[in-house]
Amino acid sequence: MATAEVLASRPVKICLMSLLFKHLRVHQVFGANTDVGKTILTTALVRASARSSNVFYLKPVSTGALDDADDRHVKQYAGSARVHTECLFRYDEPVSPHLAAKLSQRPTTPSDETLVNAIANYVRRSAVANGPAHMYVETAGGVHSPTLSGTTQAEAYRTLFLPTVLIGDARLGGISTTIAAFEALTLRGYIIDAVLLFREKYYRNAEYLKPYFAERGIWVGALDPPPPKAVNVEENFTLTENYYDRLVHQTPEEARQDNGGAGASITDAVKHLEAQHAARLAELDSMPRRTLDTIWWPFVQHGLVTREADVNVIDSAHSDFFSVYKKDAASPGSSTTKPSSSLLVPQFDSSASWWTQTFGHAHTPLTMAAARAAGRYGHVMFPQATHLPALKLSEALVQGPGQGWAQRAFISDNGSTGMEVAIKMALRAYNKRVTEVERTKPSDVAQEKDALGVLGLTGSYHGDTIGAMDACEASGVYTCEWHDAKGVWLDPPTVSFRDGEVFITLPPSLHPEDGEMYVRADSLQRVYDVEHRIGSSLEVLYRTYVQRVLRDLEAKRKEQGRGGLKLAALVLEPLVLGAGGMRFVDPLFQRVMVDVVRSADPELGLVPTPTTTLPEDEWKGLPVIYDEVFVGLYRLGLESAGPLLGALPDIAVNAKILTGGLVPLAVTLAREGVFRAFWGTGKEEALLHGHSYSAHAVGCEVAVETLREVKRLSAGVAWGDAKERWASEDVNNKQGDGKSVWSFWDPGFVKAVSGSPNVEEAMTLGCVLAIKVKDVTGGYTSHAAVEAFGPLRELLQNDNGGSGAPSGAAYEVHFRTLGNVGYFMTSLNTKPEVIRSVEDRIWNVLQLAAQGSK
Amino acid sequence: MATAEVLASRPVKICLMSLLFKHLRVHQVFGANTDVGKTILTTALVRASARSSNVFYLKPVSTGALDDADDRHVKQYAGSARVHTECLFRYDEPVSPHLAAKLSQRPTTPSDETLVNAIANYVRRSAVANGPAHMYVETAGGVHSPTLSGTTQAEAYRTLFLPTVLIGDARLGGISTTIAAFEALTLRGYIIDAVLLFREKYYRNAEYLKPYFAERGIWVGALDPPPPKAVNVEENFTLTENYYDRLVHQTPEEARQDNGGAGASITDAVKHLEAQHAARLAELDSMPRRTLDTIWWPFVQHGLVTREADVNVIDSAHSDFFSVYKKDAASPGSSTTKPSSSLLVPQFDSSASWWTQTFGHAHTPLTMAAARAAGRYGHVMFPQATHLPALKLSEALVQGPGQGWAQRAFISDNGSTGMEVAIKMALRAYNKRVTEVERTKPSDVAQEKDALGVLGLTGSYHGDTIGAMDACEASGVYTCEWHDAKGVWLDPPTVSFRDGEVFITLPPSLHPEDGEMYVRADSLQRVYDVEHRIGSSLEVLYRTYVQRVLRDLEAKRKEQGRGGLKLAALVLEPLVLGAGGMRFVDPLFQRVMVDVVRSADPELGLVPTPTTTLPEDEWKGLPVIYDEVFVGLYRLGLESAGPLLGALPDIAVNAKILTGGLVPLAVTLAREGVFRAFWGTGKEEALLHGHSYSAHAVGCEVAVETLREVKRLSAGVAWGDAKERWASEDVNNKQGDGKSVWSFWDPGFVKAVSGSPNVEEAMTLGCVLAIKVKDVTGGYTSHAAVEAFGPLRELLQNDNGGSGAPSGAAYEVHFRTLGNVGYFMTSLNTKPEVIRSVEDRIWNVLQLAAQGSK
Repeated sequence: MATAEVLASRPVKICLMSLLFKHLRVHQVFGANTDVGKTILTTALVRASARSSNVFYLKPVSTGALDDADDRHVKQYAGSARVHTECLFRYDEPVSPHLAAKLSQRPTTPSDETLVNAIANYVRRSAVANGPAHMYVETAGGVHSPTLSGTTQAEAYRTLFLPTVLIGDARLGGISTTIAAFEALTLRGYIIDAVLLFREKYYRNAEYLKPYFAERGIWVGALDPPPPKAVNVEENFTLTENYYDRLVHQTPEEARQDNGGAGASITDAVKHLEAQHAARLAELDSMPRRTLDTIWWPFVQHGLVTREADVNVIDSAHSDFFSVYKKDAASPGSSTTKPSSSLLVPQFDSSASWWTQTFGHAHTPLTMAAARAAGRYGHVMFPQATHLPALKLSEALVQGPGQGWAQRAFISDNGSTGMEVAIKMALRAYNKRVTEVERTKPSDVAQEKDALGVLGLTGSYHGDTIGAMDACEASGVYTCEWHDAKGVWLDPPTVSFRDGEVFITLPPSLHPEDGEMYVRADSLQRVYDVEHRIGSSLEVLYRTYVQRVLRDLEAKRKEQGRGGLKLAALVLEPLVLGAGGMRFVDPLFQRVMVDVVRSADPELGLVPTPTTTLPEDEWKGLPVIYDEVFVGLYRLGLESAGPLLGALPDIAVNAKILTGGLVPLAVTLAREGVFRAFWGTGKEEALLHGHSYSAHAVGCEVAVETLREVKRLSAGVAWGDAKERWASEDVNNKQGDGKSVWSFWDPGFVKAVSGSPNVEEAMTLGCVLAIKVKDVTGGYTSHAAVEAFGPLRELLQNDNGGSGAPSGAAYEVHFRTLGNVGYFMTSLNTKPEVIRSVEDRIWNVLQLAAQGSK
Repeated sequence: MATAEVLASRPVKICLMSLLFKHLRVHQVFGANTDVGKTILTTALVRASARSSNVFYLKPVSTGALDDADDRHVKQYAGSARVHTECLFRYDEPVSPHLAAKLSQRPTTPSDETLVNAIANYVRRSAVANGPAHMYVETAGGVHSPTLSGTTQAEAYRTLFLPTVLIGDARLGGISTTIAAFEALTLRGYIIDAVLLFREKYYRNAEYLKPYFAERGIWVGALDPPPPKAVNVEENFTLTENYYDRLVHQTPEEARQDNGGAGASITDAVKHLEAQHAARLAELDSMPRRTLDTIWWPFVQHGLVTREADVNVIDSAHSDFFSVYKKDAASPGSSTTKPSSSLLVPQFDSSASWWTQTFGHAHTPLTMAAARAAGRYGHVMFPQATHLPALKLSEALVQGPGQGWAQRAFISDNGSTGMEVAIKMALRAYNKRVTEVERTKPSDVAQEKDALGVLGLTGSYHGDTIGAMDACEASGVYTCEWHDAKGVWLDPPTVSFRDGEVFITLPPSLHPEDGEMYVRADSLQRVYDVEHRIGSSLEVLYRTYVQRVLRDLEAKRKEQGRGGLKLAALVLEPLVLGAGGMRFVDPLFQRVMVDVVRSADPELGLVPTPTTTLPEDEWKGLPVIYDEVFVGLYRLGLESAGPLLGALPDIAVNAKILTGGLVPLAVTLAREGVFRAFWGTGKEEALLHGHSYSAHAVGCEVAVETLREVKRLSAGVAWGDAKERWASEDVNNKQGDGKSVWSFWDPGFVKAVSGSPNVEEAMTLGCVLAIKVKDVTGGYTSHAAVEAFGPLRELLQNDNGGSGAPSGAAYEVHFRTLGNVGYFMTSLNTKPEVIRSVEDRIWNVLQLAAQGSK
């Protein structure tokens, strides 16, 4: 196998995530603006903290000439022995860091990752210190002052998710800059533990800000300002030193008296920060128990999840990683952790949080979109109304995945409701056509009392509301007491890599032998060149089979007389059956299904075409529904599966990626002919489906922003590289024709995995990688995949790098399985180096499992 | 009738909404901070605009001594004839306006409403001017500098929703303050048309901000800074005057050359603002057509909505009002509008946007909550995980409406899915109990193949997904091809005011006469004192009836042998059938239903209590589901209906108000006994329901914030006053026992309306007012209410006040009807004066209709 080469020494660069230690309390200090007293108040915090414990004072970036006096106030006073200071990057020019870096003409400017890793390393090293310690990380300028690379600090430091002290602005205008800075931090989810600012007798900003922030649960400390600057340097130093001494030794009572009752002492501030730290730890500690006592989880057998350790406590999330709390690391006697272990560890979200994540978690442009719509509209009544977010979204979808067929967009709340809407549309359209046809040409196309059902594939999944479940077969896993499967479902042939080669697996219904049959394909691209496969022997086999099933069904219905099953729609998840086990269906089979239901063969029981010619925007035979909730919008590397299949639907549903992984929303697109079936003069003929929050502005605006950003990504370098990799593997893969298949996962890796002794097959398209582990039992209740991939859940060091190295950090992989299939999913912008690193882990874990099973 | 007194001359105070005029372009100017050059750049904009048209320059509030020079630059240069200036409130002290107002010791400080109305009046007056005109409204200090009343400006001026120019900060730290100010404006939904700032060669903020804002679609103009200040006043004036002249006469080409290609001329800026104004008008104008071409609305018969004028174009929303675009006002020849008419008019959202609005639209604390959660988590995978927003929400609900019975919270996406979850829970709990009972004591409690159904009320509505529809009767309006009503539904007695008195209306099934029967009640409170009515003759009547229905059903099932209907749950909307016509059900009837299904009568076909004693947290007889999606969380003035009914449910669903009217979310609460039915060792026994965005952090955090604020409101003055008004009308209404009923609507008004000649009955609780208009046809398809209340949709002047008056503005009422019932709904914080004003309009319109029908 050529895997050694494939996997050899790839550069790994994982951003560090949130840090939290039991004994080391860390706060970052942000300023409402530059020159608001950040250094003075941080120095005061350092000195007050040093009275009882070790203190670390970190300035990640400093610009302008060093102020020696400032430095002496930190380092050379009585009691400074416990103080440790560090500055990571120093530049001379007294301008914004990004400009200072540019002006310095140094050959390289540290990236955000370098900067954040350097901070993280300093924090980790400091955490080794014995006894309780405090740390203050003082940022530069205001919250949005750029770092060396040019990203704003509030954005760049978000990765570390350190709790924050905001230094407010006591000057004229300072109320505004302080509140605006607070809101900028809130937009990034920061925990803000305190606002500190100088007491200023004329503008009295503290008087205003105290109740303002109290209402928002934030403590404000108003502190005495430093003395006016003396001209003489030494005199100035002494005056300032006295000022610090007074601040630090002031009792809380003195501080309050001194300030007419409104002030606070710096000791108050330190105590408050300590209390906040302790409260956060206590809350995290209590969360597993409280969760087990109150929460009822979806799709979880609570009988199997009874230990606190079974609860994944997500403290925050960023990019493709959760930051999860590890209670173990907090126990002093724990053997598995070092004293320097952070209580929060990164965990790769490899189910993309149930297939929703598009740009990773806490993606600021989506936060801004949500905020913008909330601020402009809140939610506004949609029937017979319009607003820009809903209108722009509808237009973008009709012109995007709906291109060439859809004219209408119906907005609902999630994939399941979107599918219920689709089914309601199809059934009505069918019924209306039948009524029209019967009126002109009496026949037996649909007998009264025939039950309307759908044609679909076994293993389909369309959501958890009961109507959506009813479009899936009775014997599926997803069922409930009212589930009443309405239709006929065919076993589909599937596509996968087996031992490095592409095969089509035929189910027993498609061949005369017992068990499955494997047909080897030239290449992956060949399988997805549906147009070229029309006329092939497989196509004839598929067509004959589908026709026979429909013919038999119709014959049976006629024989039965009344109450038979009448097919009224074709419902497909194109290309992949998701919840049904990540099975990649042979696209040719789905194409054939569409072709057959649109044919005019009277024996198949389809709706005959009316005598008048159907307009271009009408459906034919049966309404065809594509459930693209999971597979659409580039999850599989394609905007929509229609063009690849060479068959466009009449109704299609988008969700999940639609809102970029932030809030629920779904859109059901429809052909104008389907829409016309609801046109009339009576309200009861209208589509009677509408949720309270129909087309809520927040969801629509987030979706519009998502579609815009996806478009940008789709033209970017990362996608180009991945496509190139797959094209170079396959002569049939012609880049850029819109029908080429590709994946974010490495072709060599996927082929290699498919050859692992414990792997039955593997398959990938776009973001999705599915690995079927060998197992005798199989099915949804199999534990084979959970066992095989189990070690991924553990905190593993990077293969090259390791916990302390600036190039990478240890992380866990949070994965989900479907029976004996383990699947892994990226966002649309997951960094290639992260994907490579996850591939390494999967490979190593599979090797381990293979050895174990020998 | 005592209505004349009731309605006499109430003070009306409606906040003005967004203003937009075709010929008058208005921009408000916000500063990133104080002292960033706001006045200089606004003066430059004014002078550049004055070259081609009239210009209005408004400073709503000014503090500090007047700078005469500034004033002369605006008023005394060549070409100033077209310039009109105004300052509305002037204070001497050069501090923040709120402090200046305080220090001035004037007897009253203008409220936000006074301030905003004064601005609006100035704008309206200016709009009368002939020909195109420009206006600049210069705010004071930074975006969040407080107004005179202390609210921050960005918040206080939101009502007027004027498009904005942000003056950026060119100094050190200015990148941060400019971006933070931009984000503060974005959080309030402002349209930001341009960022202007001085070009500054050392800090180069403009160089950074140009691409930053370009990415966000915002134009940045970097302009030459003013000359250094000369000591001599006249010399300074001349220098500055030259500076303005140069700025204004600079061609775009000169400006760009002069700034190394990065600059802009002030003429560029004015042209850009004009283009933005034109583009906004064009977009608004195009929206109805585009909407009719692309959108498929929920619950709308598109065949009846084909004209552009039928589309309600919502440009923004604030508080209880939409701001809607009126195309007519844009047509010069329109006879219905004056030249000074704003193209945007306020429209009272009297359906509370399908019963969701809680604090009115665009409520900043909810925007902040959404942003905070988006920034900290995005959406994170929920099964087997926990995060603070979901945990806190679950705990708040279990301890709130779930108090005394619920131990578990299951989170889904909306009311309909919440009800599907509830049904799945109940059916499983039922089945499991039956299985257990059968195991210990073989009997015929449930025969194989019995169809499980629910007991409910006719006219119930539980959502639009098919499973939720199946819990409603077959003959209802809300139906589709797959709707298969599963259960038995009883006609309920209802409560209402008729001609000023309280009556219970008995349906034909409850009495021997033909038609309805009316039973007069002592008072409203008496009807809702359910406990006191136990043992009354009505209670006996109800009980006998419900028992008979169940007994007959069970007898029929046994007779039938197999495939009969077996009741497995009681499903109720407590107190009010919402979508079923806003019918207020006699609470005693619902109490009796619960009592009967929990009784142990073996003839009723209920689940016998197992031989072992049931624990306290188990359900008895049948699982009881309360659908509190609409009625819960104080929509009817009560947190939950359980305590009032004297019967707590086993399962209950909350939604709508839950998320304050911002984004969809639902929670299904359950008793531990119900939860235990899903406990086991196999995953297939788990509750297999989970949406992709299950327990999304944004929704949960918004819900937590909502519940917190609702709690505050519930203890506030406005609610106290409303309760007092109802208590003083009714000796039986004892305030504060948690079982007293009350309404935000005035009791005198409601009684008076119920006596209107064209009104059949009226009823109110909490936010809801329902008025049933007399009509021979009735039902969902009736147009009687639409016709009766039609004039409310028109732009009416206030009854006292009128369009130009500072005390109020003309507004329309956007209302929805259900058949011949018109209903009106407030938020939980709608101002009493707004409610009074809406009452006035309803009253007047009813009088008008009554006269018309004579």
